[in-house]
Amino acid sequence: MSDDQRFGLARHVILPGPLKLDGGGALAPVEIAYETYGTLNADRSNAILICHALTGDQHVASTHPMTGKSGWWTRLVGAGLPVDPARHFIICANVLGSCMGSSGPGTIDPVTGSPYAMRFPVITIRDMVRAQAMLLDHLGIERLFAVVGGSMGGMQTLSWPATFPERVGAVVVIASTARHSAQNIAFHEVGRQAIMADPNWRGGAYYADGAPPAAGLAVARMAAHITYLSEAGLTEKFGRRLQARDAKSFGFDADFQIESYLRHQGLSFTDRFDANSYLYITRAMDYFDLAEEHGGTLANAFKATRARFCLLSFDTDWLYPTAESRAIVHALNAAGAPVSFVELKSPFGHDAFLLEAPEMNRIIDGFLRAGEAR
Amino acid sequence: MSDDQRFGLARHVILPGPLKLDGGGALAPVEIAYETYGTLNADRSNAILICHALTGDQHVASTHPMTGKSGWWTRLVGAGLPVDPARHFIICANVLGSCMGSSGPGTIDPVTGSPYAMRFPVITIRDMVRAQAMLLDHLGIERLFAVVGGSMGGMQTLSWPATFPERVGAVVVIASTARHSAQNIAFHEVGRQAIMADPNWRGGAYYADGAPPAAGLAVARMAAHITYLSEAGLTEKFGRRLQARDAKSFGFDADFQIESYLRHQGLSFTDRFDANSYLYITRAMDYFDLAEEHGGTLANAFKATRARFCLLSFDTDWLYPTAESRAIVHALNAAGAPVSFVELKSPFGHDAFLLEAPEMNRIIDGFLRAGEAR
Repeated sequence: MSDDQRFGLARHVILPGPLKLDGGGALAPVEIAYETYGTLNADRSNAILICHALTGDQHVASTHPMTGKSGWWTRLVGAGLPVDPARHFIICANVLGSCMGSSGPGTIDPVTGSPYAMRFPVITIRDMVRAQAMLLDHLGIERLFAVVGGSMGGMQTLSWPATFPERVGAVVVIASTARHSAQNIAFHEVGRQAIMADPNWRGGAYYADGAPPAAGLAVARMAAHITYLSEAGLTEKFGRRLQARDAKSFGFDADFQIESYLRHQGLSFTDRFDANSYLYITRAMDYFDLAEEHGGTLANAFKATRARFCLLSFDTDWLYPTAESRAIVHALNAAGAPVSFVELKSPFGHDAFLLEAPEMNRIIDGFLRAGEAR
Repeated sequence: MSDDQRFGLARHVILPGPLKLDGGGALAPVEIAYETYGTLNADRSNAILICHALTGDQHVASTHPMTGKSGWWTRLVGAGLPVDPARHFIICANVLGSCMGSSGPGTIDPVTGSPYAMRFPVITIRDMVRAQAMLLDHLGIERLFAVVGGSMGGMQTLSWPATFPERVGAVVVIASTARHSAQNIAFHEVGRQAIMADPNWRGGAYYADGAPPAAGLAVARMAAHITYLSEAGLTEKFGRRLQARDAKSFGFDADFQIESYLRHQGLSFTDRFDANSYLYITRAMDYFDLAEEHGGTLANAFKATRARFCLLSFDTDWLYPTAESRAIVHALNAAGAPVSFVELKSPFGHDAFLLEAPEMNRIIDGFLRAGEAR
């Protein structure tokens, strides 16, 4: 394996577009930042697209350039792992609307010469998928061996066979849902209101002076972060344990470990993420309703595809609980699509898919190898 | 029944104190705003103290002076209801730290002549209960027939027999807990950070110029409000239904009904509640751990009392789930205290205790009448 294969190739492409959008407009040009791992084989049949979650990025298995942390899915993607650069040509692209190099509100609008900010069009999960398809066209990949994603990444993987039924052979959907619930929307709306309430937000036009709405974004992240963890997991990890000074301050400093943990999560997030991108991507997630896009019947979304499906949920995930995966499985059954579904046990709530999960890895490995054996 | 009995008597008293506080200091004087309904009987044996929740007030069964809305517990307290001014002398006092007339951060500090703001001492649930006991002393009531409360009101009712074992005969604890969990603390911390991130907060010193941190307080309320409702209840009430214009805006206005509902909840809250009070009361709730106050064993809290207990939880309450009530019941059993416990079915989550709940009313009515028959 070359160094490139091991660490991923950071790439960036400006495609002419236009990319037609669900909201009615079009985007041109379309910038896409992505990484690849491994080598495309001769018959171009080994490409796996990894789709990232709300605050994820293309650095799925390589070091994040800003935080210096290792890739966000090194437990699944890497040598000897289910998604393996030795066997697969792995692509992970920063989603449309994000802030890691793909077109988003922080991108320069060629018309004005300054960042789009809130003039960036509101996009959908399907728009993200269409942008990924444009990237595949650019790479000369007609058909994906598989598309794999968790959380919002799972929404994209579900949208793939619905939008491009001929272009994907296997679909792995982890800890995800076919539509955002009222509670999902509610939590996102709190986050958006926190950002917009920050006077530094200024209608999104904060790029010029280096004073972004960091306080609002931190609060948004804190609220969201609670939904990524289970109540039992929080109790196990933090309980009511106090900080080092070991006594209540009878003040408003972070007395409890959970408080300083959350504050840290909020603050560190603002170093690596753009507040406007947070608005746009949460909006795309809230708009997501795969059934609605197909006449109100989820099964219709899968009628045209011959892809195989693998669905995984976690028993303590209350953001996208198992019932949401089960609804997708029922729709796949109704559509006659082959699907395997497992609810995994984990104390870690929604975040479980990013953590050590040997059973998840075994299932995905078996599912992918079954496709390779054909 | 006189008009006074029907509508409640709004009262306000300034007690000299000092009120010794768990945080080490003392408060003097101690202002308490309260309402009473009904008449204290000759042997002073029919007094029921109603304890209110985080954002509640003393107007349990009478019109709120600022919002014009009827009392917050008119479904439980009133003529022909389980807590009935025809039989009971009903007292409801605004808790210490609040903003409806009892001593809190918005109260004038007699030392400085200006509002305490963040110089107000950090208080505990037990401090609230001690202030209520001072009020009872003032009213000449040695012993409560019963103390009744839900949510944070339930924390106070639990603290009553633990703090004043001889002064209460019956304890009704609804949708509550004996300690705040890591997840409970986490949600409150998000709210506090939202308030403190609002530049109008200014370290709490915002009373002079009529520019309170309303945006931050609204976000805090929105985040908290989600925890008061069940996922299923939100889905039933709002689902993914759009606002009147019936189409997605592909913008950031409130497209979904749940969004505008939450925004309204946040905004209207800022008309009636003080941001600093929100900080102080959430802190008191987060500090609440009745076992910790009694050597780490919850049963110890109830060893000295002869009170009867009635505990109620709701199956869809994920803020203080049934398991929390069950832990209290186990402790009461261990302490040899008589307790009846019922988990009620409701689609409405934590808020169920404030809504129409005939089964809850039947149980409380029976529990209170059993005490009166003695």
